[in-house]
This record gives sequence, C-alpha cells and structure tokens, in this order.
Amino acid sequence: MSLANDLRSAGVKILRIIKPDPEAAMRNIKVTIAYDGTNYYGFQEQRGTKFRTVQEVIEERLSRLAGEQIRVIGAGRTDAGVHARGQVINFNPGNWPIPPERVAYALNSLLPRDIAALESVEVPPSFHARFSAVAKTYRYTIYNARVHSPFLRLYSYHVPRRLDVEAMQAGAALLIGRHDFSAFRALGTPVKSTVRTMLEACVSREGDLVYIDLKADGFLYHMARMIAGTLIRVGLGKIPPGEVAAILKSRDSLRGGPTAPARGLCLEKIEYT
Amino acid sequence: MSLANDLRSAGVKILRIIKPDPEAAMRNIKVTIAYDGTNYYGFQEQRGTKFRTVQEVIEERLSRLAGEQIRVIGAGRTDAGVHARGQVINFNPGNWPIPPERVAYALNSLLPRDIAALESVEVPPSFHARFSAVAKTYRYTIYNARVHSPFLRLYSYHVPRRLDVEAMQAGAALLIGRHDFSAFRALGTPVKSTVRTMLEACVSREGDLVYIDLKADGFLYHMARMIAGTLIRVGLGKIPPGEVAAILKSRDSLRGGPTAPARGLCLEKIEYT
Repeated sequence: MSLANDLRSAGVKILRIIKPDPEAAMRNIKVTIAYDGTNYYGFQEQRGTKFRTVQEVIEERLSRLAGEQIRVIGAGRTDAGVHARGQVINFNPGNWPIPPERVAYALNSLLPRDIAALESVEVPPSFHARFSAVAKTYRYTIYNARVHSPFLRLYSYHVPRRLDVEAMQAGAALLIGRHDFSAFRALGTPVKSTVRTMLEACVSREGDLVYIDLKADGFLYHMARMIAGTLIRVGLGKIPPGEVAAILKSRDSLRGGPTAPARGLCLEKIEYT
Repeated sequence: MSLANDLRSAGVKILRIIKPDPEAAMRNIKVTIAYDGTNYYGFQEQRGTKFRTVQEVIEERLSRLAGEQIRVIGAGRTDAGVHARGQVINFNPGNWPIPPERVAYALNSLLPRDIAALESVEVPPSFHARFSAVAKTYRYTIYNARVHSPFLRLYSYHVPRRLDVEAMQAGAALLIGRHDFSAFRALGTPVKSTVRTMLEACVSREGDLVYIDLKADGFLYHMARMIAGTLIRVGLGKIPPGEVAAILKSRDSLRGGPTAPARGLCLEKIEYT
C-alpha cells in the first residue's frame, strides 16, 4: 500500500482502491441467448462490413454494463437471417462485480427486443463456448400450406406444394453417422476437415409445419441449409430418397442443395460434456 | 351494332367490343384476409396521412389485376399495428372476368408477404363486409414469461409477472351481455350508440401464453385493447375481478384500461348470418 500512502501524504483522498484480482481474471460466465436474426448480419462480427451483428450488439451492451471492454465467444456462427433459440456465449467479466446469475437479467434490460438472454451461469475457466461444444442442434422450419402465412414469414420457408414427409425422413436417415459432408458445404472459411458426425436427422410434420431437425458434432458452412434444400427436393418428388446417399458420397457441392433460405433455420441447442 | 358497322365501313378493324354487362355491375366478391399489422397504419385508409394502410395495398393490387379502379369494403377497422387472421372484405370486380374463387390466388401473387388472401367466394349483391357482420372475435395475446421472446415480440404483449388467469376469467365473465361499453372506449370516430353485446369473453393459458378471447356484435374504438388492459390489471392483482363490473357501470373511460399495446391484438373472425 505504499502508493496509497504516498497519495495520502500528498493530500489525495482515496475513495476505493481497485486491485487486479487474480481470481477475477479467471472468471468465466456462460449465457444462453435467443434472437430473431431477421435484422442482423449473422451472429459473428464481420470485419469490414457495416452491417450489425448479434455479437456486436451483445458486446456493446455488456461493455456498457461492465464499464470496460468485454469480448464474447459464441458457439455457432449463424449466417445472416438465421435465428437462434439456444446460442451460447462465454466471456470474462473482468472487474465487473455482478453475480453471474444476474448477468442475463442485466443484459435484458439493455438488449433490443429481438435478442434475449435466457440464462447465465458461472462456468470453469476452461469452458469455451465453441471448442467445448460436443453437439449442435439446428431446426429447419417449412410452412407447407397453399397460401403463405403473414405471421410465419420471418421464421419459416413457404413451400406451397404438399411435401412427402416420409420420403424426406427416409432421405434424412441416410445422413446419420460419420461422413465427409463436402457435398453439403458452400465455400467459405477454410476448415481442417470436412468430416462431421450426424447424430440425429429427423423430419416431422405438425399440421402445416414441417420440421427438419439435425444434430451433429459440428456443421460446415451452409451445411444445414443445403441438407434442408436437398430434403425439400426429396419431399417434392424431384429426387428419390436414396439419391441423398449418392449426393453425400459424391462429395460434390454442386449436387447438394440448393441452399434453403436462412429465415427457416434456427440454432436450437448447444450441448457440452 | 350500328356503331360497330359505322366503324367497320370506315375501315376500322374491331378486335373486341366490351359492352357494360348489367350482371357484372351486380357481382360481389368476398375475400378473407390475414395480415401482420406491424408495418401498416391500420386497415383502413386514413385521409391525410402518408402512412400505408392494408386497404390501400389491397386496392392497389386488385386494381392492377382488374385493369380498373377497385374499391373494397372492410369488416373491421383495425388500428395501426393490430393484426388479423380473419379480416373480411368485399368488392365489385366490375368488368374483371376472373372466377371468384381465383381472386385469392391472383391477389397472393402480387401481395407483399405480410398480407395473405386466404379464400375468395362470390356472395349476393346485398352482402356488405361491415354492415352484414353479426359478430366479431378478437384475440389478445400476452407473453407471460420472465424473459421477453424475440420471436413473439411482434405478436404479443410481454408481461413478466405471473398473471392470475382465474381472476382474469372471473373479471371477463362480468362483461358478457348487453351493456353500454363507454368505459372501454377511446375518443375517436363518433358512434350512434355505445351499447354493444358481448357474446363471449374467455381468458385461457397455454404455457407461457395467456389469451383473452372476446366475441361481440361490435367493438367500440380501442374497446378490445382497453378490456385487455383492465383484465391485465386484474391478473396482476391490482384490482379485484369484481371491479370490472364497477368500471363497466361507471361508463367512465378514465376508469377503464389502460389501452394494451396494439401488437397483442388480432382480429380472428367475422361472422355473418
């Protein structure tokens, strides 16, 4: 406390001494986030673009609350227009003395209404939203009715012709397992490997809604949307279900797809060990 | 056909003679419309405002299809931001030779994605979307969860504190019957009478959603939203259910309400004899 004593003897009144707390440097908070991606240019900050990303908005609000620059790590880099009900982020709160479980509440007081913090908890310093994830689940929603829906237009892809859900399910089942998914990958950021394990692939109907639920240890760029586009072709009878295996095996991205619109896709859940 | 003969003898080639058809003048088409009211200044054209209304958009598209000016009559004048799943319009198609049941299909090809024509049928010339209506049903949707929902933000009103649905139902039941609803009326367009008959008033919960369903022979300006605002006060325990009868009896619009936000309200159904 020699500096404090020096300052006191110099007549400086010390209100509070903020010491760098070695424990604080290790704090790690995990927050589960939901967002309507309609008005965002994806989750992750895009260097060089002037469009707003979800991550940017969250970092800006967290930094304002903490009174210092906060950077977050997101589990999944959702594309422009893609939604999330279970995105996960983690961050080091630095010297911000907020109890971890209050972070979601504080964040919601500042977030725009199309982003919500659902829950916040303290996690071990080793937790990394992206690298610690063991499985991700995406849902693709199709509005399968003759007339489009004004209320679902932002959250589904409208297919007026009746889809054969059984054929789609038969095609989806062929994706399960460990495969090279190059046929369902758009060129984007380079990756070390294009091999992923599809853990679940399920197509179901609830009235006019058809859901494609995909759970994998990871997804390549546009993979979920290209699989959805391929399964829609199956559902419309344009290709037989068995063709899905042939497309997968071809590893040819010109055969997979087309890429279904972003608005139908939602990141539902990230699982950790 | 003397004019035609005159023209022919003058060397004019006549491709088609359009005669005013006395039957056509009597044709009347009814269309059921759904819309997301978020981006509109209500259903009905507001003279002197520069904002877009749903009616304006529909008339513009119908006129383009018909090749002549079409004017429509709407059943309910929904406020700015209020939605509809069962708005009804009728119009005279003039010389437009389209089969009535194809109108919805043709209209959907031109409508923006936040408006949809659900069905179109021919009706007797005497049918008037507004004056022939015998009952209207509105639903007010409340999202009753601690954290707001990015996906329901445009279609519900977020109330974080748990609502007592049984108390709300008890209050709603007191509105049933023929009453002067002046307590639940905002000053707006003058009306001959403020007496309306509430046919059904039901409050229910489905998970985090609380619905207020109101069916009446007619609604005064802001009536559904002021009733919703009053019942929310009951649900929060701010007033006892019995107070609803006292407010109704007072005929004092300063006691009714507050006016719940437009985005929670949806015109569900119009009934005709």
